[in-house]
Amino acid sequence: MATVPASSDSRFGLARQVRLSGPLRLDSGAILTPVDIAYETYGTLNVDRSNAILLCHALTGDQYVASQHPLTGKPGWWWRMVGEGKPVDPSRHFIVCANVLGSCMGSSGPASVDPTRDEPYAMRFPVITIGDMVRAQALLLDHLGVDRLRAVIGGSMGGMQALTWPTIFPERVESTVVIASTARHSAQNIAFHEVGRQAIMADPRWRGGDYYADGDVPSAGLAVARMAAHITYLSEAGLTEKFGRRLQARPDSPGGQKTFGFDADFQVESYLRHQGLSFVERFDANSYLYITRAMDYYDIAEDHEGSLARAFAKTKARFCVVSFDTDWLYPTAESRVIVHALNASGAQASFVELASPFGHDAFLLEAPELNRVVDGFLRAGEQR
Amino acid sequence: MATVPASSDSRFGLARQVRLSGPLRLDSGAILTPVDIAYETYGTLNVDRSNAILLCHALTGDQYVASQHPLTGKPGWWWRMVGEGKPVDPSRHFIVCANVLGSCMGSSGPASVDPTRDEPYAMRFPVITIGDMVRAQALLLDHLGVDRLRAVIGGSMGGMQALTWPTIFPERVESTVVIASTARHSAQNIAFHEVGRQAIMADPRWRGGDYYADGDVPSAGLAVARMAAHITYLSEAGLTEKFGRRLQARPDSPGGQKTFGFDADFQVESYLRHQGLSFVERFDANSYLYITRAMDYYDIAEDHEGSLARAFAKTKARFCVVSFDTDWLYPTAESRVIVHALNASGAQASFVELASPFGHDAFLLEAPELNRVVDGFLRAGEQR
Repeated sequence: MATVPASSDSRFGLARQVRLSGPLRLDSGAILTPVDIAYETYGTLNVDRSNAILLCHALTGDQYVASQHPLTGKPGWWWRMVGEGKPVDPSRHFIVCANVLGSCMGSSGPASVDPTRDEPYAMRFPVITIGDMVRAQALLLDHLGVDRLRAVIGGSMGGMQALTWPTIFPERVESTVVIASTARHSAQNIAFHEVGRQAIMADPRWRGGDYYADGDVPSAGLAVARMAAHITYLSEAGLTEKFGRRLQARPDSPGGQKTFGFDADFQVESYLRHQGLSFVERFDANSYLYITRAMDYYDIAEDHEGSLARAFAKTKARFCVVSFDTDWLYPTAESRVIVHALNASGAQASFVELASPFGHDAFLLEAPELNRVVDGFLRAGEQR
Repeated sequence: MATVPASSDSRFGLARQVRLSGPLRLDSGAILTPVDIAYETYGTLNVDRSNAILLCHALTGDQYVASQHPLTGKPGWWWRMVGEGKPVDPSRHFIVCANVLGSCMGSSGPASVDPTRDEPYAMRFPVITIGDMVRAQALLLDHLGVDRLRAVIGGSMGGMQALTWPTIFPERVESTVVIASTARHSAQNIAFHEVGRQAIMADPRWRGGDYYADGDVPSAGLAVARMAAHITYLSEAGLTEKFGRRLQARPDSPGGQKTFGFDADFQVESYLRHQGLSFVERFDANSYLYITRAMDYYDIAEDHEGSLARAFAKTKARFCVVSFDTDWLYPTAESRVIVHALNASGAQASFVELASPFGHDAFLLEAPELNRVVDGFLRAGEQR
């Protein structure tokens, strides 16, 4: 879907960026100003401003949820969910998707210019949290004239933002969809992220984060970080089905053969190397550090005296929680924790575990059941 | 256990090393000569040479199975299994443990001197396989005058060697104990290893493997590789129990606090960093490349026209297969595959899945059930 209703209001449309003065007070205590937010909108805000849906992206996602990515040329990362006739539909909804704080696609992050120094923040950018990302999104909604969200929807880190929204702005959210996500980062989640961070910081080109001036970026470290993370996005069964122990085809051996060397003999090696190499062309290593840190700090209960249920005490939002049976990064048990807390808080919550061979990545892939669940949940709210 | 019966035969005892002329023909077709093997023996070979047990070590293990490690000062890696009154007992058994081919504790590997060049092989060392490791161990047993093994026992990669032994030398093995292991490396196993290899090779100090001359080793890359691998050795539940989201104690905050920076705030981060840093002091990065490659190439069925059962057709060995319920690196399903093949081949096989919170690492930790299983299996064979 590339067409957007013509609007004379320059706030609306594709590839928008806005500089807001804020100031945004962060969880760390630091103050961020200005706050740049890059975003896209699809569809039209209706007269009573009641049809807004905020979509939240994952760790390495961006605002291009349903339009072509400017760097990769690929379709939007959630084109299966967002578009005409799809659950999130620009003919019915006013859709907003913003690049998260700390990222590198136009919102304020380590690559942004620090106005006090007139050079990139790099590692002088303040450490941010999932809550900070949500507050920045709220600033954007203020700017767009959206007081209240019909829904906030996200998968993975997007689900963390979606779940956090009603805890910070209980009156601004009517419904929340949390997919393949969790209410807190586990020790294993933190451990994998720490491997990625150490891989980046071990790259001599990282130079304490000050690599912007000459553009000689720590791509080797970032590629390794991406490779390690990528394994956690896939299921063991999915990897076996997709690659197994199949060898790379070679000019002299179409079926492949072991080289008894260190080239990528196995298809899964070649695939992973490709994932690492292509990632570094579209993502900033410092942003990877900041966003993984925000995810590791994430624990909604921790911010509410240890009670997850208490976090939802003030909201009347409806919740839809979805997990995938082969997701071992944020397994179904993590979704159950959310649902139990929602039940304890008296919130209206539906929960479904979907079957998929694709592990954590399932929420981004062909998943008709997921579309049906989200569509049904949104329409139920719209009929009231 | 530090005492070994005095022997006038210098082949027997602690901290042995032998240079065998071989030549050893490798699976790659390359010929290795000489073949250095570093090993230890415990106990005494009885008169009819019938009490020999070969212990096989894991990826980063070594010959110091039950004696103090010369670099770390720690007790032998399997002191819980090997010693007076333990299942593998030097008062009853003649115990052999050799550093695997490709490793770095005295056996031939990339750090060894290439006699044709009079400098370390580095990446000119031939790529080896699990089968090659087994054949090198057989050369050592020839040297020690051991024709036949009462048992070959190993966990993880040690289990791969143990399982391979009767497939290559069906007459030389009476019984085999395979713990927390597999008959072939899966796509996910290969993927994790590939991340580690890429981390090492991305380190500019690696220099194509030629770092021995100045000793400026790729420790940053190797540490990242170790960190990534280490996560796979532990269970999610074990990590949660051991660390959860607990923060590092700090001088001004005994309970820890978030620093809103990139220090190791969480205990699990600090633990992982320590694992990486301590590992590089005892292990060679090139050896890590070679041994992970050997493991990835490992697929016993592949070497027997795709039939795992056929691999065991010629042996009369008894088998004991043990898995741990929380081991997600080589999960119980992989052990079942082995047992089904053994059953199909008519081999005598017992199988047990043990409960443990410790994941793959369980075989190295306090596991009284494991000791009982191994002890019972060995004694049953000795009573016949």
